[in-house]
Amino acid sequence: MALLEDLLAGDRSALARAITLVESTRPADVTAAHELIRACLSHSGRSVRIGITGIPGAGKSTLIDPFGTELIDQGHRVAVLAIDPSSARSGGSILGDKTRMEDLAQQEHAFIRPSPTGGTLGGVGRRTRETIILCEAAGYDRILIETVGIGQSEHHVDRITDLNVLLMIGGAGDGLQGIKRGIMEAADVIAITKSEGTDRERNERNAADLRQAIRLLPPREHGAHPAVMLCSALEDRGVRELVQHVEERAATLNANGYLAQRRKEQERWWLRTSVEERLIGDFFQDPGVVEELARLEAEVLSGARSPFEAAEQLLRMRKE
Amino acid sequence: MALLEDLLAGDRSALARAITLVESTRPADVTAAHELIRACLSHSGRSVRIGITGIPGAGKSTLIDPFGTELIDQGHRVAVLAIDPSSARSGGSILGDKTRMEDLAQQEHAFIRPSPTGGTLGGVGRRTRETIILCEAAGYDRILIETVGIGQSEHHVDRITDLNVLLMIGGAGDGLQGIKRGIMEAADVIAITKSEGTDRERNERNAADLRQAIRLLPPREHGAHPAVMLCSALEDRGVRELVQHVEERAATLNANGYLAQRRKEQERWWLRTSVEERLIGDFFQDPGVVEELARLEAEVLSGARSPFEAAEQLLRMRKE
Repeated sequence: MALLEDLLAGDRSALARAITLVESTRPADVTAAHELIRACLSHSGRSVRIGITGIPGAGKSTLIDPFGTELIDQGHRVAVLAIDPSSARSGGSILGDKTRMEDLAQQEHAFIRPSPTGGTLGGVGRRTRETIILCEAAGYDRILIETVGIGQSEHHVDRITDLNVLLMIGGAGDGLQGIKRGIMEAADVIAITKSEGTDRERNERNAADLRQAIRLLPPREHGAHPAVMLCSALEDRGVRELVQHVEERAATLNANGYLAQRRKEQERWWLRTSVEERLIGDFFQDPGVVEELARLEAEVLSGARSPFEAAEQLLRMRKE
Repeated sequence: MALLEDLLAGDRSALARAITLVESTRPADVTAAHELIRACLSHSGRSVRIGITGIPGAGKSTLIDPFGTELIDQGHRVAVLAIDPSSARSGGSILGDKTRMEDLAQQEHAFIRPSPTGGTLGGVGRRTRETIILCEAAGYDRILIETVGIGQSEHHVDRITDLNVLLMIGGAGDGLQGIKRGIMEAADVIAITKSEGTDRERNERNAADLRQAIRLLPPREHGAHPAVMLCSALEDRGVRELVQHVEERAATLNANGYLAQRRKEQERWWLRTSVEERLIGDFFQDPGVVEELARLEAEVLSGARSPFEAAEQLLRMRKE
């Protein structure tokens, strides 16, 4: 495959075409994508996969710009995958994303690509995971996965990444409003963005409160509570320290075997979850099941049947 | 059905027999249980379903004793269902549970029953939910569902209850260790137990810290953050206030329509989840699937296949 060779040589347009192939749902493309991914697998895995999460307005792109540039200055090749529902609505605004990351977009060693959020949960996860494989095979060794963390489909980011940075805006203690449960719990580092000018002092107090609060929550599986850091892309403060912290954290988790174990569990989880989603999806999209479910649900809500009895009734519609 | 009549008349031994029927997996019993539940549905729903969660040693039984007694003093009939993995291991220690709730066990208007945790997730949820229906049909209007909140099977307590009380032990800020994610988030009230003697002052500081921390977390769907209260069963302090708070909370959520809406969503969820669990469970327990899954998982972990391709391979084993 010429595409594979070009991809492994690090050719950027080959990578873009490979991702388009993986995103395609045409049967011929699906088969070709499988082959391509299989060939790339042995060239993948040698990166740090970093989730960057935060509500719209938290300053994700603004931070990723100097964050990615710093990584490139340190000799890395950086891929940015943005799972952004708004970019999906505007038809995949590659240009929009590139404009928001002006410096990074001009770097030779950066690759920026929005990941569409349409389709099923498994679809999104699959596309993003396979895109990571492709980027790694093309020689990118730092993968930044940007998600807003409010939709259903970005909820699985913790099943894709090695570690996650949650961006928050300082304020009157309600900075976590709008963040889905699970996103907060998936954070390995919390960065309070836009900590500049007169907001800096307030954000320092927010950080202190948050550090205290976090100790009361269950820690991450690796045993550590997330660090809370301040940064300002505008004033170029704290970004280098954030990169440093993430790199050290990744090195520690790599050295103690946590990352290898985590990735194995992720693989198992995606295998299992993909099967489960298809079993459930195929059953519930059967028109006969849809009709029967509506009827049974009405019976359950009127108190004529228990949900469990209704479930057994519905299961009789399985093909044997 | 004589059993149904006796049950609706509030006969305690009929209730006990009915629960045993619902817990049975014998096909004839399952059919009879369906009929019984269906007949009880129109007599159910007129209770407040209160989850009482906390790790072993948090003082659940010790608190439920005066908590339930206070409710009875106020004119209620109280059923306590304990989903306790340890009681399942010791063969369902009804006596054990009764001994731990000495005062309550002697009350005419109390009914205490451990709910075994064996079997599937859906099995546990189903048994507990159907037991609630039976208790309500027998005239119990306050149902306390006691769970330790550390196992997989009690994780769904928020899908069964109207509101939840999380019991915590005061200490050096690590009181939430061991509590599963999700349990903390499902709390409508947090009670710091054993707040007595010299520990009282420390627990008051813990409560203040916790109140501040909680404001940083997403609120419950009904929009309120959980209250944090101190109580001591030993010194008989704070229990009446806790009952009062829970009752007021339930009254508010009932008046604004939240509880009715919540129960409808729970019914829909159990219908859907029961179907999903059976679809998944039946597929994965097929011996051929088990064998193929092990083979494919090994391939995925060795990097020979992506989890998504392996999933498609495994799905070919479906009966058509």
